[in-house]
Amino acid sequence: MKKATSKDREKPIPGDFVEISLMKKTYHGTLLESPGESSILLLKLKSGYNIGIIKKDIREIKILEKFTEKKEEKIEIKSKDKPKIGVVMTGGTISSELDSKTGAVKWLTSPEKLFRFYPELFEKVGISKIEVPFMKGSEYINYKDWKKLAKIVFKLLKNPEIKGIIITHGTDTLHYTSSALSFFLRHLNKPVVLTYSQRSTDRASSDASLNLECAAVAALSDIAEVILVGHATTNDDFCYALPGTKVRKLHSSRRDAFKPVNAKPIAKITRDTLIPLTRYKTKGKENPKIDDKFEEKVALIKVYPGQNPDILDSYLKKKYKGIVLELFGLGHVPGKEWIKKLKEIRKKGIVVCAAAQTIFGRLDPLVYSAGRDLEKSGIIFLEDMLAETALVKLGWVLGHKEWAKNYEKIHEKMLENVAGELLGRLEE
Amino acid sequence: MKKATSKDREKPIPGDFVEISLMKKTYHGTLLESPGESSILLLKLKSGYNIGIIKKDIREIKILEKFTEKKEEKIEIKSKDKPKIGVVMTGGTISSELDSKTGAVKWLTSPEKLFRFYPELFEKVGISKIEVPFMKGSEYINYKDWKKLAKIVFKLLKNPEIKGIIITHGTDTLHYTSSALSFFLRHLNKPVVLTYSQRSTDRASSDASLNLECAAVAALSDIAEVILVGHATTNDDFCYALPGTKVRKLHSSRRDAFKPVNAKPIAKITRDTLIPLTRYKTKGKENPKIDDKFEEKVALIKVYPGQNPDILDSYLKKKYKGIVLELFGLGHVPGKEWIKKLKEIRKKGIVVCAAAQTIFGRLDPLVYSAGRDLEKSGIIFLEDMLAETALVKLGWVLGHKEWAKNYEKIHEKMLENVAGELLGRLEE
Repeated sequence: MKKATSKDREKPIPGDFVEISLMKKTYHGTLLESPGESSILLLKLKSGYNIGIIKKDIREIKILEKFTEKKEEKIEIKSKDKPKIGVVMTGGTISSELDSKTGAVKWLTSPEKLFRFYPELFEKVGISKIEVPFMKGSEYINYKDWKKLAKIVFKLLKNPEIKGIIITHGTDTLHYTSSALSFFLRHLNKPVVLTYSQRSTDRASSDASLNLECAAVAALSDIAEVILVGHATTNDDFCYALPGTKVRKLHSSRRDAFKPVNAKPIAKITRDTLIPLTRYKTKGKENPKIDDKFEEKVALIKVYPGQNPDILDSYLKKKYKGIVLELFGLGHVPGKEWIKKLKEIRKKGIVVCAAAQTIFGRLDPLVYSAGRDLEKSGIIFLEDMLAETALVKLGWVLGHKEWAKNYEKIHEKMLENVAGELLGRLEE
Repeated sequence: MKKATSKDREKPIPGDFVEISLMKKTYHGTLLESPGESSILLLKLKSGYNIGIIKKDIREIKILEKFTEKKEEKIEIKSKDKPKIGVVMTGGTISSELDSKTGAVKWLTSPEKLFRFYPELFEKVGISKIEVPFMKGSEYINYKDWKKLAKIVFKLLKNPEIKGIIITHGTDTLHYTSSALSFFLRHLNKPVVLTYSQRSTDRASSDASLNLECAAVAALSDIAEVILVGHATTNDDFCYALPGTKVRKLHSSRRDAFKPVNAKPIAKITRDTLIPLTRYKTKGKENPKIDDKFEEKVALIKVYPGQNPDILDSYLKKKYKGIVLELFGLGHVPGKEWIKKLKEIRKKGIVVCAAAQTIFGRLDPLVYSAGRDLEKSGIIFLEDMLAETALVKLGWVLGHKEWAKNYEKIHEKMLENVAGELLGRLEE
């Protein structure tokens, strides 16, 4: 950046570092391109957060530093003698850099860019391959993307040069994707490590570097499971490896947003060590297998007090095949009329499963009579399975036509511990 | 109970304490009446949990103690010189005793029964009045019950003899009720304390006694808010007073199931002391007011990956007036097509609000461009308000016809901190 001259000062443009004075407050930050005809001016603060300022409240804007374009340097990456990993980039904050002009994200997809942002990663491992099946914020990821991702990971599983796989991913639906990969990829022979960042790389508080370095440690370990690696606490000191089917985003912005649910972390990971905390799967005798069948007509419904069960008819009409209900407490519906309606849609072929709205803990329909009635109506109570995991698993189970044609088989599969999603995580 | 004789041994009946032998396991517990034509035998274990045993797996049943009916004694409750409180019983585990014959719950509604189960409560306070607006498991409570409850509490607020009010309530939807009362009852002049138990009174691990005793301490305090009092940890040693609009059931069975969300506990309470931990409201100059208007056509929808937004049309068709969406991350929808659909239903008059699926943390639609587009589509982003609280508040706001006819007013009211539901809990 160059110092602002008096002439520049007249017209602040996106990318400029400015001082904005309102009646009572003054803000410093980088001006972003404002969306459309907006009456709001967007400013990226030093903390990394964007704020919107109502234009008519602004008394003065001073340009402190003018915007200048950065030039990309060509970097030579030396990693010949290091153990090799595969990297799959799918988007999200960790795979993006901020365009300081527009505030929009630009994707980091070349090894050079990755190196420039995360040089520490290349001290530990050699990157055999960077695959980019798609680049998007994870809120837009759906089952088709899970399939694409599984196919690419499967290819890397079979590549003997590669010790482990790191997948960078947005945080919003990361726990759904980790579940999907856990069901789609069977008999793993190496670690499949999903990682993320909650704060963008241009922020001092970014969690990307530590998460990636710990992901590299995990990728070289003997864990043969789909795991999620990220900050264990709000400090930037160590990470946890968390089980792919028993993890949930539990904070919108904290660096330790992901917490294990009804499970313990698999390992504690620092920048150079991995300390196992619980039992995990290691490479077995069978070869890796991909099994990515998926029925897209599955839905998740969280119940609320006084809810009218008639909404279930809409799912019937729209030809849904399966529904996961997030029930109250140990597994209760919001009214007696629900039992009749659930029997009805069950008879018409919709498979209904139940998970806990409390998130933590296990369902137990036998404790109260209401739960016993409900169980008789043909709902499959999924013990301590997370609702998010349950949705993915239901789609996966119903995607198998040979299972889906037989209700007993569906029931059996939903309660079989396929990928550590049930209480006894590794009883398989 | 009397010892079983050899003759009794032949026919075990519900209420008997028995030993059941299977091929490999032996269970001890009280036989419960089995539901209907069931092929399952229900047994209440000493831990208090019920288990179902498949009848054909049973090799032998031994009766260890025969069932005998308990007789109710008449008890004289002395509480003349003690400070008076009002008690409102609404059902739930805390207001029930187990019928050892059927396993069904029987409600405790008389002061005598309450005394027999919770004598400690009567050492601290005199009970001026026990009100019973309804008795039910809280999963069946809806907005009509919230109104009934508010009316009864309001009556007790105006009774000068009463220092505070304890409401016993089931746990499943307790946090929805605490929100409803927080909005329905304005300008409180005394504590309104909701309490509960997660384990029934017949279990050694019951949390009912400590919760009730701590509730009594809270009911005599100067807190003039709707609060929830219950176990702070899994130990039976002290409770927290939690803010009525910032609390959520986060475990299906643990005694410390209720946790504050985006807030701190108001106070730590032992059996005889209350230690304030954060600022709280005390009695003001204005008289208590009841404002229980409520629009029942409000819904909560938790989004999931790849979800088809067409389901929103069903809510339009069913004439819903408001929807709270539980969005991903900082406030994101599962696909770009959602923005169009949301604009569409917004135009047709449905008010759409957003809360965080992550539970903890705050929404911030300005960070990513997807969120900014969404904000322009007319969604009201509810900062760090809990989705459950948001649903109740939306029903309350839309219930006021004078507000509901003006979208700007609705927007303003949803983002006004009415009962500590937003970040600055007590900025009102």
